[in-house]
Amino acid sequence: MLAGRGLIAKLLLDEVDPTCDPLGRGNKLIIAPGLLGGTSAPNAQRISMGGKSPLTGGIKESNGGGLTAIRLAKLGIKAVIIEGMPENGSLCNLVINSDGVQLVEADHLKGVGIYKSTKWLHEKYGTKAALAVIGPAGENCLLSACIGNTDPDGNPTRYCGRGGMGALMGAKGIKAIVVENSRDSAIAYADKKMFSNVVKEIMECVKKAPDASKMYPKYGTPLMIGIMNEKGALPTRNFTNGQFELVENITGERMYDVIEERKGEGRHKHTCMPGCVIGCSNIYPDKNGKKLVAPLEFETIGMLGSNCGIGDLDEIAHLNYLCNDYGIDTIETGCALGVAMEKGLAGFGDAKGAEALIREIGKASVVGRVLGSGVVTTGKVLGSSRIPAVKGQGFPAYDVRAARTCGVLFSTSPMGADHTGGHGMRSALDQLKPEGHVEFSRKLQIITSAFDCLGFCIMISSSIGGRPDLIVSLINARYGTDVGEDFVTQLGTGTLKTEREFNKLAGFTKVDDRVPEFFKQERVPPHNLLFDVSDEEIDTFFNFE
Amino acid sequence: MLAGRGLIAKLLLDEVDPTCDPLGRGNKLIIAPGLLGGTSAPNAQRISMGGKSPLTGGIKESNGGGLTAIRLAKLGIKAVIIEGMPENGSLCNLVINSDGVQLVEADHLKGVGIYKSTKWLHEKYGTKAALAVIGPAGENCLLSACIGNTDPDGNPTRYCGRGGMGALMGAKGIKAIVVENSRDSAIAYADKKMFSNVVKEIMECVKKAPDASKMYPKYGTPLMIGIMNEKGALPTRNFTNGQFELVENITGERMYDVIEERKGEGRHKHTCMPGCVIGCSNIYPDKNGKKLVAPLEFETIGMLGSNCGIGDLDEIAHLNYLCNDYGIDTIETGCALGVAMEKGLAGFGDAKGAEALIREIGKASVVGRVLGSGVVTTGKVLGSSRIPAVKGQGFPAYDVRAARTCGVLFSTSPMGADHTGGHGMRSALDQLKPEGHVEFSRKLQIITSAFDCLGFCIMISSSIGGRPDLIVSLINARYGTDVGEDFVTQLGTGTLKTEREFNKLAGFTKVDDRVPEFFKQERVPPHNLLFDVSDEEIDTFFNFE
Repeated sequence: MLAGRGLIAKLLLDEVDPTCDPLGRGNKLIIAPGLLGGTSAPNAQRISMGGKSPLTGGIKESNGGGLTAIRLAKLGIKAVIIEGMPENGSLCNLVINSDGVQLVEADHLKGVGIYKSTKWLHEKYGTKAALAVIGPAGENCLLSACIGNTDPDGNPTRYCGRGGMGALMGAKGIKAIVVENSRDSAIAYADKKMFSNVVKEIMECVKKAPDASKMYPKYGTPLMIGIMNEKGALPTRNFTNGQFELVENITGERMYDVIEERKGEGRHKHTCMPGCVIGCSNIYPDKNGKKLVAPLEFETIGMLGSNCGIGDLDEIAHLNYLCNDYGIDTIETGCALGVAMEKGLAGFGDAKGAEALIREIGKASVVGRVLGSGVVTTGKVLGSSRIPAVKGQGFPAYDVRAARTCGVLFSTSPMGADHTGGHGMRSALDQLKPEGHVEFSRKLQIITSAFDCLGFCIMISSSIGGRPDLIVSLINARYGTDVGEDFVTQLGTGTLKTEREFNKLAGFTKVDDRVPEFFKQERVPPHNLLFDVSDEEIDTFFNFE
Repeated sequence: MLAGRGLIAKLLLDEVDPTCDPLGRGNKLIIAPGLLGGTSAPNAQRISMGGKSPLTGGIKESNGGGLTAIRLAKLGIKAVIIEGMPENGSLCNLVINSDGVQLVEADHLKGVGIYKSTKWLHEKYGTKAALAVIGPAGENCLLSACIGNTDPDGNPTRYCGRGGMGALMGAKGIKAIVVENSRDSAIAYADKKMFSNVVKEIMECVKKAPDASKMYPKYGTPLMIGIMNEKGALPTRNFTNGQFELVENITGERMYDVIEERKGEGRHKHTCMPGCVIGCSNIYPDKNGKKLVAPLEFETIGMLGSNCGIGDLDEIAHLNYLCNDYGIDTIETGCALGVAMEKGLAGFGDAKGAEALIREIGKASVVGRVLGSGVVTTGKVLGSSRIPAVKGQGFPAYDVRAARTCGVLFSTSPMGADHTGGHGMRSALDQLKPEGHVEFSRKLQIITSAFDCLGFCIMISSSIGGRPDLIVSLINARYGTDVGEDFVTQLGTGTLKTEREFNKLAGFTKVDDRVPEFFKQERVPPHNLLFDVSDEEIDTFFNFE
């Protein structure tokens, strides 16, 4: 019983040569809802997109919100697999509905940004269609290109952001995947009543979890900015400081106030997908109350903000908008800009300079292609020895010297440096001491991998992560199965092991399970720590069945 | 009893963390003459330079001619090891003489080309001093940067070219290594008479070898241009053809005629180091008989010439001169330009366009840094799926689809794609059939590795490669040892195994022992072949003791 991330891992291991050129004929782009996709389970409509990553050369699953999962699941589709390559370099839309699948010529959308492309697609297919769209970056196969999914409002900005899945889609010659809204639903419940009862119970859990019921709806993920700064782990000016002197201008609390002051189209407690009962998303308005970008998230504020020395939410929101429109990952881009700024392509804090560089990515000029190829290529080209990346993928907004659980996660995740595997930064574990992080991260990664198979968003993990009984009840009520509580753990461990095996066959070794040298050699203020979880302990991470 | 390449391998495995940042404090640049360095043995004054390669991330030994080996050996120096890093980013010359070693400030040579730097160094230290110099590319730590050694004429163009050893020297803050000429010699022969007798016998062997005694002195390595074109294995326009329609303009035979016509400073049968009895080098003159470049070699003509669609020796010589002055490897640069031309940065055949791009490398602009980072980075940035490289290093001038022995060599050599491990293209083995190349390459690589430990140049291998008796007689006469004929094989196998072990610890796996996908998927004219030595057979390469 596989779906989402786990299904993708299995299909890739079975069907794709791990040594293939990720942008060549042999790779496949796989799009799969989770096991609970299409159901009324809360926060269960994440869409998983995966393939051999053009960025890392390893396996990749990147998930996002929006409508894609629910539309596919309601059509009874377990996975969309895009393989081969167009022979004539043409661009198409892949249109899916209850009648089947069609490739529709889309050359007129060549080079068109994600926002404008979405407008055209909505006009053609209706605003209820789920869209998964790439921008010029994806068409140009830039390694940091992402795929934007439309949310219930029609915003195309629910990104499967990491690992260059947009480049993979571009290599396949697909501009957009359109999943039309179907009147009928293929979702059948073995026991609908039981399912509803469990859903109600989960809602109670969510209500009792202070972060899910109060903090995240109010402040969203940017709540983490203040927390990370307090911990001394907020990447600042390419990881030269763990605290940012302008932090108060970019916190979640500040964002809340700005949205309150400006009102207009601004929103808190915004939901990115149907069935979300938390609402950690937001619409960030400009001074006139017009939407500037939606959402503005922690990772983006950290990487395009403090990591670039930029301490102004409006400026960050504008950079975010540009990245969204070109279809590039804000984390990878923030990492690359941090290195580029350190190497003098713009000054730290120079938002105009950052904008100019991002516009180069949109144009796919040589300098733009360098930056759009991600932080490792950027650092290599510019001669940096301070490249924050693991397995070729740039760091999200956690300085691992004061966020050791993240250091273990980034080291060991088959995805490379990726916070979505379970960053653990709101736990009680002392992040300034080396002990306990491998064990803790293992636990987190297993449950998070399981959530990625189920279609759950990680924001609900604090509510039900410790309640496998509820989760398997949903599964059993949906499918008429009789799986026990260990099913959840098995989903997680099985997925991680399959992904690890793919990476091994792709040529990864334990040498790839390491944070960069400078995190072990260069102390970061304010705690003046190094990353000191030992290699030996990290190498025990996969010692589980 | 180790020296040269073998000593470097041992020192690196013992003293350098294979996972270290190659441009960081942990790497070491090691410079070592061979076992016969400083002696009167013919063609035995190659200098080996090695370290963890900034280009490949694996082990690297790159050897060149010139005076460096003989000067070091005569001072009794087995190896120069440069470690650590300058704290203040200053530039120094490393001056070695019979009094010892000195670091002398050299900031006035910052950014100065290799030719002009050499002039200054010759004025200061005399023309008999051996110089090993980097150019701006090395100072800028560009991954294709090389190190130029001065020859008996004072030309600083005997390059340890491959793997970015110039970047490693630049990272150490060393502009030049100066080995002053010593009146005394530390070379003592256990049995001088026996040594002389063996030398005489070797001279007879050389005389009897038609290539060493006739072909190479006349045509030099460019003799191979016609041969490779005939075989259909001459890289043309980024490996889209194995034959070049303008080949007659760039052959060794043509070069011979040009030098004969122009006379002036032009020379055939030029020697690149003391004790050379072959003279495969040349001085290539311009239309007025003034030296344009020395030497103009096969690999350069192939990669900057046919591979870039450029069919004019004067133009190639001019590009070669620029590469020499900036201190970048002509092979890696020709590879990178081939990809850049395919991606439209200049047209194939556009020598002016190629020159402009090479000048960007000299300036270390962003586009220059891309190209100067080698073909893999260039291809990645420009979005190419046709990147001719193994283990991060660009192909020399052999299309492996019609040069299978080279395909095995490039796949298995611990150095990555490198012809100096024994290309075997003048043997009788059928290069159009898949059989026999692994066994043949193994034999070649073992003897060639041994030669790299002895200090021998590979041009003498056809004369004495099959005479281990003569080689061990030299060793025994020099050192008073009593080694048997198997000593030569042991040198070779031991070196390869040590290097392989270093790479394994650096994270290399059999996945890295592969030619790029397009050589297996895209047929090349005129024979319309794929590279088809099986992965399984290639994986048997290291099955030896």
